[in-house]
Amino acid sequence: MFNNVTIVGVGLISGSFALAMKQHGFAKNIIGVSRTKASEQKALELGLIDEALPLEEAVRKSDFIYVAIPVDATIPVMQQIMDLVTDKQIVVDAGSTKHVLCEAMTGHRNRKRFVATHPMWGTEYSGPEAAVNNAFAGRACVISEKEKSDATAVAIVEKIYRALGMHIIYMNADAHDIHAAYVSHISHITSFALANTVLEKEKEEDAIFELAGGGFESTVRLAKSNPAMWAPIFMQNRENVLDVLNEHISQLRKFKAALEKENMDYLNELMENANKIRRIIK
Amino acid sequence: MFNNVTIVGVGLISGSFALAMKQHGFAKNIIGVSRTKASEQKALELGLIDEALPLEEAVRKSDFIYVAIPVDATIPVMQQIMDLVTDKQIVVDAGSTKHVLCEAMTGHRNRKRFVATHPMWGTEYSGPEAAVNNAFAGRACVISEKEKSDATAVAIVEKIYRALGMHIIYMNADAHDIHAAYVSHISHITSFALANTVLEKEKEEDAIFELAGGGFESTVRLAKSNPAMWAPIFMQNRENVLDVLNEHISQLRKFKAALEKENMDYLNELMENANKIRRIIK
Repeated sequence: MFNNVTIVGVGLISGSFALAMKQHGFAKNIIGVSRTKASEQKALELGLIDEALPLEEAVRKSDFIYVAIPVDATIPVMQQIMDLVTDKQIVVDAGSTKHVLCEAMTGHRNRKRFVATHPMWGTEYSGPEAAVNNAFAGRACVISEKEKSDATAVAIVEKIYRALGMHIIYMNADAHDIHAAYVSHISHITSFALANTVLEKEKEEDAIFELAGGGFESTVRLAKSNPAMWAPIFMQNRENVLDVLNEHISQLRKFKAALEKENMDYLNELMENANKIRRIIK
Repeated sequence: MFNNVTIVGVGLISGSFALAMKQHGFAKNIIGVSRTKASEQKALELGLIDEALPLEEAVRKSDFIYVAIPVDATIPVMQQIMDLVTDKQIVVDAGSTKHVLCEAMTGHRNRKRFVATHPMWGTEYSGPEAAVNNAFAGRACVISEKEKSDATAVAIVEKIYRALGMHIIYMNADAHDIHAAYVSHISHITSFALANTVLEKEKEEDAIFELAGGGFESTVRLAKSNPAMWAPIFMQNRENVLDVLNEHISQLRKFKAALEKENMDYLNELMENANKIRRIIK
């Protein structure tokens, strides 16, 4: 149980984490740090945080600092935090990319106080209103560069995530970023692109969306995601995302070729292969 | 209330339709027609049908015949049925393509007995076990070439679908096929291709799927769909699907260009445009 926990960012991930920390008895007092007064106010109203403070003041008071902001803002904010902490405090980030941040933290005199994590949970919504109770459960949480963090700090972070129902996977930062490109980042890009595809058509046809059924909704759901969060993720993980995107375009071209050549066998073969995904998602 | 209703095909759509017909009091006795004994047996066990009969016998006994089989099998089976029916019977199909079938039925002496429909509901599962109660509700049902069907037959079909919670949209067969390509067929192709993309990676990396979270699951869910059902749909709606697929590949290439050029503004612009899908899916 910590007396004071700071969440930096008061949105979907940090807000849901704050709720969970309270619910599981890990935090007495939650301090919120946000760039905007409006978000602070909203987070207070929603009971995500007990008080709002400027970053430096919040960090100095806190036992545990949890950073979940767009990944392009993470490094400068983390530099500030890491310069302030003592060897009693724990700093955790929840970003969707790990390589750039871990590299930036390498050699910092307080590196051991930092635990790099990525809880693989989210929704297409953002902001304090998007925070929910009982988030994270049943999903994986990646911890990167465990060996560079203080063992006790890692043990505490693991205990918290496990209490939230997550299972821990250890992965170096590069491996994390490759895997995240495959199981998360590409899904977002295809969803954004599918929305644009259909919106392009909508210019010509009024009635098109009256027809949209469940399949369409589930494939296009992620296209509602916040660009301010995703653009920096794609950019930081640019090479891996481009690799996967190229593979995906080439897979789509196979469907195109099968259709153009009216090759039913090839079309069936492509889909039968895709069916193997049943092994992975139940 | 019909004494005898035949469902041709005893799978996801026909089975769910049979359950709904019973639940809403539209059918006393449901007769199932299937190509395989195993499916007939399963449909009987599951209570989807009351008896199983060969096609001709079933059709002769029935007031209402509902055809929901893979679209490449629909035309020959419909020819058989249409040759058998009298001007007291109603024949309805539920296929995902409308142009080819409607064309094939044009000029048939019993054309007025046929109502061409597409209830825009489904899941990624197939077969009798996939049938569920309370399917169809809240979704659109397209009726094509209404003017070529007997007005009373259309009114009955509308009444049934409305009782199931669907709203009716009238659309000519060509317009239906274009729209279906945008709001259904392309979602399936992207999902199949995304599954193949990720499965390709899996060959190199063991742990990748431990990370798969909710976003991935929802975009890749449709990749579990049955190739025997979808290959004929894509093939019958080939030109429209190719149009949309080309547009989709070009939309993905825009993301690729934005990333290659590290053009943050363009990347944001693409995603902000995609966010407009919020207007359409809540």
